[in-house]
Amino acid sequence: MKKLINDPRAVVNESVEGFGQAHADLVTVVPDPLYITRRDAPVKGKVGLVSGGGSGHEPLHAGFVGFGMLDAAVPGPVFTSPTPDAILPATMAVDGGAGVVQIVKNYTGDVLNFETAAELAQAEGVEVRTILVNDDVAVQDSLYTAGRRGVAGTVLVEKIAGAAAERGDDLDTVTAIGNRVNSNVRSMGVALSACIVPHAGQPSFDLEENEIEIGIGIHGEPGRHRIPMENADGITDRLLDPVLEDLGIASGEEVLLFVNGMGGTPQSELYIVYRRAAQVLAERGISVARSLVGNYITALEMQGCSITVLRLDSELKELWDAPVQTAAMRWGR
Amino acid sequence: MKKLINDPRAVVNESVEGFGQAHADLVTVVPDPLYITRRDAPVKGKVGLVSGGGSGHEPLHAGFVGFGMLDAAVPGPVFTSPTPDAILPATMAVDGGAGVVQIVKNYTGDVLNFETAAELAQAEGVEVRTILVNDDVAVQDSLYTAGRRGVAGTVLVEKIAGAAAERGDDLDTVTAIGNRVNSNVRSMGVALSACIVPHAGQPSFDLEENEIEIGIGIHGEPGRHRIPMENADGITDRLLDPVLEDLGIASGEEVLLFVNGMGGTPQSELYIVYRRAAQVLAERGISVARSLVGNYITALEMQGCSITVLRLDSELKELWDAPVQTAAMRWGR
Repeated sequence: MKKLINDPRAVVNESVEGFGQAHADLVTVVPDPLYITRRDAPVKGKVGLVSGGGSGHEPLHAGFVGFGMLDAAVPGPVFTSPTPDAILPATMAVDGGAGVVQIVKNYTGDVLNFETAAELAQAEGVEVRTILVNDDVAVQDSLYTAGRRGVAGTVLVEKIAGAAAERGDDLDTVTAIGNRVNSNVRSMGVALSACIVPHAGQPSFDLEENEIEIGIGIHGEPGRHRIPMENADGITDRLLDPVLEDLGIASGEEVLLFVNGMGGTPQSELYIVYRRAAQVLAERGISVARSLVGNYITALEMQGCSITVLRLDSELKELWDAPVQTAAMRWGR
Repeated sequence: MKKLINDPRAVVNESVEGFGQAHADLVTVVPDPLYITRRDAPVKGKVGLVSGGGSGHEPLHAGFVGFGMLDAAVPGPVFTSPTPDAILPATMAVDGGAGVVQIVKNYTGDVLNFETAAELAQAEGVEVRTILVNDDVAVQDSLYTAGRRGVAGTVLVEKIAGAAAERGDDLDTVTAIGNRVNSNVRSMGVALSACIVPHAGQPSFDLEENEIEIGIGIHGEPGRHRIPMENADGITDRLLDPVLEDLGIASGEEVLLFVNGMGGTPQSELYIVYRRAAQVLAERGISVARSLVGNYITALEMQGCSITVLRLDSELKELWDAPVQTAAMRWGR
């Protein structure tokens, strides 16, 4: 295992420390228990947004803390849920009096720990709502999940719910908009290689020289099946077809097309996948109104990508376009 | 070789096609000969900025085409210089009447081909100046270079010279500012793994299981030496010390600290490197006034990073902060 790390047990703390220093204009890092807030938190009168989960998916979630997106991110150990004792103070720290929305990817540990933290926060007088993200169409249940997994759709939920909170929507409206994004977004991924969790020191699964895994999870948990390597267009079709089918999207509708890199795949390859996906959507009469291409939710250095399609309406487009100022997503401000 | 590609010979064309579709609000792709311009090119009265070079370093250069940065990018085949027959029309296309500045990384092929294109453009009445970037302190001559190689400092030259052109500086002033950045920036990189050029199909060099290469080039060309794997802090010191020494930076000065990923390294590791570099700079009384962390100039899926330090003055800071709107770098607008 060759990694740019020091002590495998210190990876998250040291990385977040560097992150906080590099982006001190945007965020504040609280070291123990570890969480990150936007620098001006709490924003008085604004609904606070908190997300979090296991580390190793960077820039998710800390990279999305800032104006127009998250108020706080709570990083757990690599691929391991953060505990309520970190989620609770993060929740309290971003309550500006209008309540707090938790954005939770659907993994059993995350769901339980955010739920516990929500109950504790409510006992302290903070109103808490939860948006559960479960956009992965690959499998119904999985290694760490009952039901569908939450994957790249989370990035879109965080951006759009964050914009709603920033424009002054109340707690129930922000929650409803986040849930609307989740209802209209689907994803599926592929792995060309495994990744190595630092404290494990070896790959979390094995792929043969010429084998890929369709429907992979963002922790390397099993997908639908392993197949021999194919070309980019063929793989793109294998990911996009189930996404479109599950979404029930029709000719004439508008979508956001998001090609996400898993961490170890060159950007040039992501655009080759994007090209084919855009081609298929055009053939079906679906209009790509917005695009996102890059490493936004990763699995350490895994090679592969995921394709996400979000059905748009005029309000979701407006919220997507709204200004955002975070380490990993920034425009309009 | 597992890559998300179709025909290895079509990688650049298909990738740039996808890039153009995903960012149609920012850029125009001209397919044959292949180059990319900002959508509103030529901007009347503004100095035009053209860069380019072999592909495989994305987001460099196409990702930096747009308001406040490059007017055109000319991608060659993977790790191979573009030819004058593509550089020339790109140059002509972005001449708004105030002349054109070429930003050229110091590789023999790039230097020759941009020089030829400059002569042809001048014969057609366009004034052309050249900024040669050679910030890599690792080695004096290299596989494709006489003198020092141009590496991550190029990103900073493109941003700052681009801001100067956008505010209305004339041809000689933009050139002088770009040269000032180059004079005040130094870089050095490390590889933990090699990368595979698609049409070659095998790694461009071999590293042992526990071996890394200090001073690697962005095409995998040899650096200073190979050493057994070390921890992140040790590797950071090995990169940063020669950079600081060569730059002759003194206590009390202000710098921009840039930790660049080579493509296959997780973002969390880049921030661990950033953390140590910031620590060393603080110990030496050098103030990190600006930061950049991420994959900005890559070597396909190579694992590793580079560290770049730019000595700042108040004008360079102002130009760095100026609005930019490109696919890979966007703020303030």
